[in-house]
Amino acid sequence: MDKLNIGIIGAGRIGKVHAETIAFRLPEAAASAITDLNLDAAKAVAARCGIPRVAASAEEIFADPSIDAVLICSSTNTHADLAVLAAEAGKHIFCEKPIDHTLAKIDRALAAVEKAGVKMQVGFNRRFDANFARVRQAVASGEIGTPHRVHIISRDPGPPPIEYVKVSGGMFLDMTIHDFDMARFLIGDEVEEIYTTAAVRVDPAIGEAGDVDTALIVLKFRNGVIGTIDNCRKAVYGYDQRAEVFGSNGSIETQNCYPNQAVISMGESIRRDLPLNFFMDRYTESFANELREFVDAVRNNRPTPVTGIDGRIPVAMAIAAKRSHEEKRPVRVAEVSAG
Amino acid sequence: MDKLNIGIIGAGRIGKVHAETIAFRLPEAAASAITDLNLDAAKAVAARCGIPRVAASAEEIFADPSIDAVLICSSTNTHADLAVLAAEAGKHIFCEKPIDHTLAKIDRALAAVEKAGVKMQVGFNRRFDANFARVRQAVASGEIGTPHRVHIISRDPGPPPIEYVKVSGGMFLDMTIHDFDMARFLIGDEVEEIYTTAAVRVDPAIGEAGDVDTALIVLKFRNGVIGTIDNCRKAVYGYDQRAEVFGSNGSIETQNCYPNQAVISMGESIRRDLPLNFFMDRYTESFANELREFVDAVRNNRPTPVTGIDGRIPVAMAIAAKRSHEEKRPVRVAEVSAG
Amino acid sequence: MDKLNIGIIGAGRIGKVHAETIAFRLPEAAASAITDLNLDAAKAVAARCGIPRVAASAEEIFADPSIDAVLICSSTNTHADLAVLAAEAGKHIFCEKPIDHTLAKIDRALAAVEKAGVKMQVGFNRRFDANFARVRQAVASGEIGTPHRVHIISRDPGPPPIEYVKVSGGMFLDMTIHDFDMARFLIGDEVEEIYTTAAVRVDPAIGEAGDVDTALIVLKFRNGVIGTIDNCRKAVYGYDQRAEVFGSNGSIETQNCYPNQAVISMGESIRRDLPLNFFMDRYTESFANELREFVDAVRNNRPTPVTGIDGRIPVAMAIAAKRSHEEKRPVRVAEVSAG
Amino acid sequence: MDKLNIGIIGAGRIGKVHAETIAFRLPEAAASAITDLNLDAAKAVAARCGIPRVAASAEEIFADPSIDAVLICSSTNTHADLAVLAAEAGKHIFCEKPIDHTLAKIDRALAAVEKAGVKMQVGFNRRFDANFARVRQAVASGEIGTPHRVHIISRDPGPPPIEYVKVSGGMFLDMTIHDFDMARFLIGDEVEEIYTTAAVRVDPAIGEAGDVDTALIVLKFRNGVIGTIDNCRKAVYGYDQRAEVFGSNGSIETQNCYPNQAVISMGESIRRDLPLNFFMDRYTESFANELREFVDAVRNNRPTPVTGIDGRIPVAMAIAAKRSHEEKRPVRVAEVSAG
Repeated sequence: MDKLNIGIIGAGRIGKVHAETIAFRLPEAAASAITDLNLDAAKAVAARCGIPRVAASAEEIFADPSIDAVLICSSTNTHADLAVLAAEAGKHIFCEKPIDHTLAKIDRALAAVEKAGVKMQVGFNRRFDANFARVRQAVASGEIGTPHRVHIISRDPGPPPIEYVKVSGGMFLDMTIHDFDMARFLIGDEVEEIYTTAAVRVDPAIGEAGDVDTALIVLKFRNGVIGTIDNCRKAVYGYDQRAEVFGSNGSIETQNCYPNQAVISMGESIRRDLPLNFFMDRYTESFANELREFVDAVRNNRPTPVTGIDGRIPVAMAIAAKRSHEEKRPVRVAEVSAG
Repeated sequence: MDKLNIGIIGAGRIGKVHAETIAFRLPEAAASAITDLNLDAAKAVAARCGIPRVAASAEEIFADPSIDAVLICSSTNTHADLAVLAAEAGKHIFCEKPIDHTLAKIDRALAAVEKAGVKMQVGFNRRFDANFARVRQAVASGEIGTPHRVHIISRDPGPPPIEYVKVSGGMFLDMTIHDFDMARFLIGDEVEEIYTTAAVRVDPAIGEAGDVDTALIVLKFRNGVIGTIDNCRKAVYGYDQRAEVFGSNGSIETQNCYPNQAVISMGESIRRDLPLNFFMDRYTESFANELREFVDAVRNNRPTPVTGIDGRIPVAMAIAAKRSHEEKRPVRVAEVSAG
Repeated sequence: MDKLNIGIIGAGRIGKVHAETIAFRLPEAAASAITDLNLDAAKAVAARCGIPRVAASAEEIFADPSIDAVLICSSTNTHADLAVLAAEAGKHIFCEKPIDHTLAKIDRALAAVEKAGVKMQVGFNRRFDANFARVRQAVASGEIGTPHRVHIISRDPGPPPIEYVKVSGGMFLDMTIHDFDMARFLIGDEVEEIYTTAAVRVDPAIGEAGDVDTALIVLKFRNGVIGTIDNCRKAVYGYDQRAEVFGSNGSIETQNCYPNQAVISMGESIRRDLPLNFFMDRYTESFANELREFVDAVRNNRPTPVTGIDGRIPVAMAIAAKRSHEEKRPVRVAEVSAG
Repeated sequence: MDKLNIGIIGAGRIGKVHAETIAFRLPEAAASAITDLNLDAAKAVAARCGIPRVAASAEEIFADPSIDAVLICSSTNTHADLAVLAAEAGKHIFCEKPIDHTLAKIDRALAAVEKAGVKMQVGFNRRFDANFARVRQAVASGEIGTPHRVHIISRDPGPPPIEYVKVSGGMFLDMTIHDFDMARFLIGDEVEEIYTTAAVRVDPAIGEAGDVDTALIVLKFRNGVIGTIDNCRKAVYGYDQRAEVFGSNGSIETQNCYPNQAVISMGESIRRDLPLNFFMDRYTESFANELREFVDAVRNNRPTPVTGIDGRIPVAMAIAAKRSHEEKRPVRVAEVSAG
């Protein structure tokens, strides 16, 4: 295969990021078509990134035999159905997270992918961040010995609009989903049981919308590791994305990423500028890296680094976390994850 | 009152530390007698610290009308009974932690203290460490707004001998007790419910002795704060003592303390020396500070900064934490703390 | 002007970097031709970056009326002559540093640029690094008050090959040149006098080649600021690129940049991975940023951020530094900088 | 020798520090007498530290045969004469820095010490600070290979009163003297030549008093190491005391010392509290350590760690630094250091 020929479904924020990566940073791939319910958005991205065709629909893209792979960057509730159609059309699939909020729809999509024999990668981009990759390496290589604990801090600079909160599926499915994936990735094992303590601390309107904004989630891994995820929808100092794994031979802990390394000593304090403020700045490289890996997996017929199963399990974890919060007891993931 | 005249009961490791503080760093106090079941130990400390009398027993000290206050530094199982006797003798009491492993004995001691009208301080020295004091200040002053989360990391350099583990009362009462106190101190509120996940990860012999060596404990505070305590009996890099409080207006996080601030850049890595390695080095100043505050409270008839009740509550928390671990469910502190 | 049409002269390491920036990160520009004495090198870069034409010579590029601007990335001894020809052909010029090792040749190039009325930018890329830019901002904005001191640490991971040392013009012109520019940039003022202490500490062969490998250079600025540059051709821990400016209202100090923010606590030390190891990794973004600014300056007819004069002065400083070293006395820049 | 019996001459700030060390932290020594021109000051220190006698004069102390050693903590201009008298009386001498501002008087004192065969230690306390001691260890042990560079930053929180500046002997003798000692201590070799650039940046009144307040001093060591000292009388963020030694096998760099290790993340910046603010806080331990070493040297008949010669050489360096500043040329220490 020469260049991987890609069709992009969805020209919103994340679709645009991926289109730019393909245009400007991935010589091994090219986007030949893009579509969006909002055709003007699709046209704008096409113009900026030199994409020759704006397709009228996803179906038009699936029907194009020259297209090897599709990026599903549309709204979450369409992911699973589009994945089924893409698989049936024989396209390799890069799908944004989460695949869906229900396991049944995810399973249908995964079955279609399996049946078609196409590749699927789910957009857990943080795995491709240099910091978390370094932590994973320390665990996988045995550098810190047998892991005992993983602690993930994941706090957003501010909550999304209430209208979004209402359709988001709830914090566990919308925000913690990344951290569930990260916990599995860092430890390289599965979680058996989850205990959640959550509350509304940031904005009462979030509670009125039926959601929480602050949570502490305890994960019991099959191999005995104890995990914790510390979530909050609002950290005034910005985007707080850290992790520590503590093991029998040492500990590895990442710090936040900053726009610069300058330390300023003033009459009141010794200070530095705030961390990179949200995911577009913090994870710029990881967005590019995940696509590079996807393109490489398809072109060289290698497994994708984040499979469909990797997309399903965090959803099951989120459902278990929510149930634990509602029923105030530890919940086994097996309770909720039957297909 | 001129100098506070102190009698010391127990010339073991911590008794010796307190004796040295009085002799060399506390001009406002003097130790006039010391005793220990091992009289040679008492004599050695007396000689080093210029204590004029080695008493044959604690009772001899209680009977001395010139003595204003006693430090109870003997083995844990004697603390409560000695506190009762000291109170009945009208002595002010500084008692090492924990007062006892059972709430009933603690309550007897507290009743005796109450009845006698003497002052009591419990040896939760970490409150007087500059780092944790700074965190408390940030919470108490509102610097970080309304607190949402407190996370305490407390890992020892290595487990104690198995013989000690067997009589220690278990990790929650022996080690986490400090962290239970710290959680209450930092947040300035009480814990209602505790959920524990614990395991034997460091040494199977600890499990055989009926104890755990690694734990993650979730605390629900009355005011909605969610706390976590991360304990392990062994961190190969040494004594790991950190805390973070995250609030509506910011976050404050302490780092470990090091013997020096040197950063060394070598061909393999950028590194620094290990942290101060155990409590005698890490908390040198806090041991001195707590005695200074006790002496000050007695001499100036002010409340002690860590009361008998402050000694009782962490024991109840430890009992709740243990029950949560055994019964694999969240346990309300009220369940176990009735007198 | 639509896209800026660029011709690239030189397909070596730095020419390739600039070609990739134009191809993959600068939508506002396009390279339509590239040339190199080694035509195979030019062809390889052209293929990778989609440059439609490999020109047989720089002259062929200058003769192409469709080309707006040229990047001069050939060997140093050709920079000045090519700049004259480019200017005479009416091309805007981006020229790698140093323009030349002799002030006379630089002055001829600058005169040609002046006469032709084209724009010129010199490749002092470090100005566009986020760290140094932040330091400059702190000085320029008055954040740290009136500056008193600037201290620049600039150490390479290892010396270049001896064959290169022999033709490099010496460490001051080859390596320190970047730091002379940085000193002027950070302070925003000119240096009047230079005192150099230098030695051969890394490799005697460097001394045999007539050069030094370790130096401390003192700069007296017109505004009274005292500057120091700390150079060494070899730091075993990698590329050490830091700066501090200390002023009446505070201090700002940059740290090195690392491939990740992970801190690893082991039984021997607390450590992190080595810094980004050489200029291609450390200054990736600044190389892209400088071209973006050049393209922007030409397209919008704005002054370039690093002018021809900015290219001349550091060469004069390097000559003064060398003379100070040879004559063991402070040397005024005016002594050496007459045209 | 049982306890070392010490007489203290001078009950000002530093005399009081030493008296407290002896009273509260040095069981191996006791102060039996103290004197001061201001007898009330001497009485106050005696009362606080339990010193039994306030002597009417230094001579009275020298005449007391029970006194083994004296601490000379009086004003600088009396140090050398008192040292001569103390030596003639057979007392071991701990003398605050500098011994004197003139080499001739220093040499008389050293000759008297030599003739009397008593021990002498000069109060360069910073050698006993854990940070600088760790740097010295890295150099002495070869941990960082052959040293190439030493860089010392030494900035005060604010200038002394102008009246003090006028009698201080100038910044080089009053403030940099510590840094001259530190440079020799860290490298373990002698300085041959000094070049100084200095200015009045902080307060014109300092210039009117004939002094400077900001300086950069270059040191050429006999072994080829290049040293720099960065001095300023005022850093708004407090007491800035750092050092770096860079060598063939790595680099070691100390950071400032802070009252706590807390990092505070707020909406504007990530910050920490200011460093320990002046020498009484920053060097508390090093003041105690130097006396402990002096007492140990005398009691066990070992060489003192900072000899009379160690007291003389930094004065010669200060004189050379001043001459370099005045004559705007590098000055060899040998030029000024002849006896």
